[in-house]
Amino acid sequence: MGTTARTADRLLDAVQAGVTIYDLGRRLTVGMPQSPNHPAFGLTLPRRHGDMVRADGGSAANDLLVMGTHVGTHVDALAHVSQDGRLHGGADAAAAQVGGRFDELGVHTVAPMVRRGVLLDVPATLGLDSCEAGYEITPADLDATVSRQGTPVGAGDVVLIRSGWGRLFDHEDRNHYIGKDSGVPGVGADGATWLAQRGVHAAGADTIAFECLPPGKGHSTLPAHRILLVEHGIYLIETMALEELARDEVHEFTFVMAPLPLYGATGSPVRPLAVVSRG
Amino acid sequence: MGTTARTADRLLDAVQAGVTIYDLGRRLTVGMPQSPNHPAFGLTLPRRHGDMVRADGGSAANDLLVMGTHVGTHVDALAHVSQDGRLHGGADAAAAQVGGRFDELGVHTVAPMVRRGVLLDVPATLGLDSCEAGYEITPADLDATVSRQGTPVGAGDVVLIRSGWGRLFDHEDRNHYIGKDSGVPGVGADGATWLAQRGVHAAGADTIAFECLPPGKGHSTLPAHRILLVEHGIYLIETMALEELARDEVHEFTFVMAPLPLYGATGSPVRPLAVVSRG
Amino acid sequence: MGTTARTADRLLDAVQAGVTIYDLGRRLTVGMPQSPNHPAFGLTLPRRHGDMVRADGGSAANDLLVMGTHVGTHVDALAHVSQDGRLHGGADAAAAQVGGRFDELGVHTVAPMVRRGVLLDVPATLGLDSCEAGYEITPADLDATVSRQGTPVGAGDVVLIRSGWGRLFDHEDRNHYIGKDSGVPGVGADGATWLAQRGVHAAGADTIAFECLPPGKGHSTLPAHRILLVEHGIYLIETMALEELARDEVHEFTFVMAPLPLYGATGSPVRPLAVVSRG
Amino acid sequence: MGTTARTADRLLDAVQAGVTIYDLGRRLTVGMPQSPNHPAFGLTLPRRHGDMVRADGGSAANDLLVMGTHVGTHVDALAHVSQDGRLHGGADAAAAQVGGRFDELGVHTVAPMVRRGVLLDVPATLGLDSCEAGYEITPADLDATVSRQGTPVGAGDVVLIRSGWGRLFDHEDRNHYIGKDSGVPGVGADGATWLAQRGVHAAGADTIAFECLPPGKGHSTLPAHRILLVEHGIYLIETMALEELARDEVHEFTFVMAPLPLYGATGSPVRPLAVVSRG
Repeated sequence: MGTTARTADRLLDAVQAGVTIYDLGRRLTVGMPQSPNHPAFGLTLPRRHGDMVRADGGSAANDLLVMGTHVGTHVDALAHVSQDGRLHGGADAAAAQVGGRFDELGVHTVAPMVRRGVLLDVPATLGLDSCEAGYEITPADLDATVSRQGTPVGAGDVVLIRSGWGRLFDHEDRNHYIGKDSGVPGVGADGATWLAQRGVHAAGADTIAFECLPPGKGHSTLPAHRILLVEHGIYLIETMALEELARDEVHEFTFVMAPLPLYGATGSPVRPLAVVSRG
Repeated sequence: MGTTARTADRLLDAVQAGVTIYDLGRRLTVGMPQSPNHPAFGLTLPRRHGDMVRADGGSAANDLLVMGTHVGTHVDALAHVSQDGRLHGGADAAAAQVGGRFDELGVHTVAPMVRRGVLLDVPATLGLDSCEAGYEITPADLDATVSRQGTPVGAGDVVLIRSGWGRLFDHEDRNHYIGKDSGVPGVGADGATWLAQRGVHAAGADTIAFECLPPGKGHSTLPAHRILLVEHGIYLIETMALEELARDEVHEFTFVMAPLPLYGATGSPVRPLAVVSRG
Repeated sequence: MGTTARTADRLLDAVQAGVTIYDLGRRLTVGMPQSPNHPAFGLTLPRRHGDMVRADGGSAANDLLVMGTHVGTHVDALAHVSQDGRLHGGADAAAAQVGGRFDELGVHTVAPMVRRGVLLDVPATLGLDSCEAGYEITPADLDATVSRQGTPVGAGDVVLIRSGWGRLFDHEDRNHYIGKDSGVPGVGADGATWLAQRGVHAAGADTIAFECLPPGKGHSTLPAHRILLVEHGIYLIETMALEELARDEVHEFTFVMAPLPLYGATGSPVRPLAVVSRG
Repeated sequence: MGTTARTADRLLDAVQAGVTIYDLGRRLTVGMPQSPNHPAFGLTLPRRHGDMVRADGGSAANDLLVMGTHVGTHVDALAHVSQDGRLHGGADAAAAQVGGRFDELGVHTVAPMVRRGVLLDVPATLGLDSCEAGYEITPADLDATVSRQGTPVGAGDVVLIRSGWGRLFDHEDRNHYIGKDSGVPGVGADGATWLAQRGVHAAGADTIAFECLPPGKGHSTLPAHRILLVEHGIYLIETMALEELARDEVHEFTFVMAPLPLYGATGSPVRPLAVVSRG
């Protein structure tokens, strides 16, 4: 007797009928590409097996993790960015951070997400493997992708914009993915407005900064951060792994993400999933 | 026109029909109760709003996270515990950790979980709010709970054992939850064997160490860790928040958990979810 | 031929004639007593011998240090404390810290010290091994100690006030030395004024907070910090090891201390020395 | 009446007659050049003024320090390097590090130094501002420098070898000082043997790795580390600031250094001093 037959939960029935899980999180390794604006990812073993052995022969190893919260695949909380001294909703940024944490708008306020997700595979629309360095993805590109895929974007959805730049994540020279000199493709102000107009819940990309970085400019202006985080309260997810979804042409899925409830933080590392029913 | 109508994915249909999400992860705050064996949880803001303002009036705050991987709600990878110098599967523990990371059995090898989950609410079976300090939950308790709830435990399931001790997590004196002097309730070797015999994929509890700690003994022997992690390759999830599930008598659900893929680490903080279709 | 004969430097001649060095710094160990207001001292080995062996058989181990700067024996820079929003000299504290560091008054501005040092052994004057918990050392105590010892305190000196409390540093229960419940002996506002009137360059003590802590009050008010750091620009040195100096009745010496030039920090761990010519 | 007249301590007399202090420690700043083999230097303010204001208007700011112990100006303890699995004195390196710390040969065993110091200004001997990238300083260079300066090196001395490379420490491109591609000047095996034969107590240099690094080789072989640390128990001090000593032609001095007593660590950041009597 299987357990499947017993359940009366529609969701669990669907899970037990078989699902495929796509892992959208990058592996966190010492030395991986990350923004130089954030503390580097570090992981060490303070205790190794054999350091302290119990009378019964058992031993445990453990870790020390030191990292920024905007490294690896991560989500930006609304507390992350301010404009003219104001956070999303108008709160004074200086006052909100007194005490060294954000009681409001910190990443602990980001509810776990189990929602419709849509991948917008822009380079596939453009007939490319990857958008070029510094290319700004336009509203026309987004519309064309929606149309080609047959996946309209609705209110509350999580929209993941593939630029193809993620293929450089594992390049032996980490500077390629960071793209300081070359620039990095992504949406600009117009693409961000397109997302905001559709009322998406969160938006993600396969690059470190989500948005288009012109060559040599670095993070000097980030209009999409302003429009999405500050003006519309839309979360951003960065450094995502989107190649497998694109390869399998999975454009619509159940998106699952549970940020660590780091009290008062401006972001969290995450391991988002795209889940689909099998055949 | 809604987007719901367009999907042909059974899982996504179930999600869009409405789900309730139970958050099984504890909020991570400086000063929260944790095992003294692991580096303390620390979170600070290296950069605050106003520290560096862009020409366009934008500013970003960010965080530095310093923590053990076995603090807050977390999962133990198989690399965490060895017995007589051997890890699960027989690998030599000393050799496996050369380089300061576990290429095999590290937490990056733990696949994201979207599976049937079962809550075993033991104190409800015993007619108590909470098991007593140091109480060893027996196989008979587990059998009685399965029977009372009508939730058999099957191979591949994730089984969460509620002791009720989690109600102390927010106590103003963090030592209550840690329970060094009092002891902490949980399964012992027999309960661990019960779980292993059923072939569960992972097991969780609402306490720091998962298993029964007799008063004053601390972590001097941890037979359930040996049996589950080393002998059977079953992951452990600790410091879970199970009170809401118990309150709503949700004993069977879709369990979702995506550990951070920290390359080579022995564990990861997690925010597990229990998801059920709405009525 | 010795090298001694060649020198024409008076200081080096004195050194080469023989000196005794007293180590006034506490050993930094994981778990040592420290103020709970500061990040805990942590030290681990990310790399151990054997993790990476060179072709020639060489191997190196290294460390990761995570700590507050006010743990162990340490010096307080003038940036550490503000009063009514002002730092020493009247600078606005909020403005001074923009950027997450103190360009002015940070510990990098503390010049290395090679100066006359004076130990004021107060309990010896009082006929005690140690001042009692919570005892406030008075100007009369300081005067009596100067007189008994024959060591007047002059402008530019470094004055170390022994309370005897340092004998608890190695107590197996670290809470004894911290003294939250018991209180801790030290000078109060009057003793601080006594020091300031004499124009000392820095003042030290064998306790965590330098000044008298009444039982159960913790660090709720710290008048000596205000008077010395903010009003007079006198550095404070805390958690010093003064027992050996007292045992040998070394009340006057060359005091040597070189804080780490941590750019913009509010303090630094130090290992101060008292050096005297040998008989 | 001054306090000078009262002392009968020859060392203190010399100090009070007037000394000049040369600061041989590099300022520790986020982003400074350091070896990529060690955890990066990080310093943040978890608490700023205004985060928590006492009833009396007082407020304190504090720091979190995260760093390797071999960054900035630092000393290598004997535990740092092993050869063929053995530490200095023959101890088994693997056994010595069990527990994650070196009870023997850790940096806590390095006694504070108040000793004769000698600067060997090699480029001045060679008629250069700086030795060239990758240049190996030979025993003949060292002999010629001793002879030119009139400063023989004796047993127990601390010898600081200036290559001139330290002039690059503040270069806007930190890679210049690190010198991975260019190589870095310093002694090789022969120069290290020269030092060992003279029985020096410690040896320092104005480069990250102390010894000659051929272009493009990085730290692939470090014979001077083997000879000095492992074979002869001579401490190494790296990343020193030697330009001011050279400018003033101070070749002989009192060397003062007090490593932090980090229990069990392989090294410590330091701020060494050269002190001379004034005119």
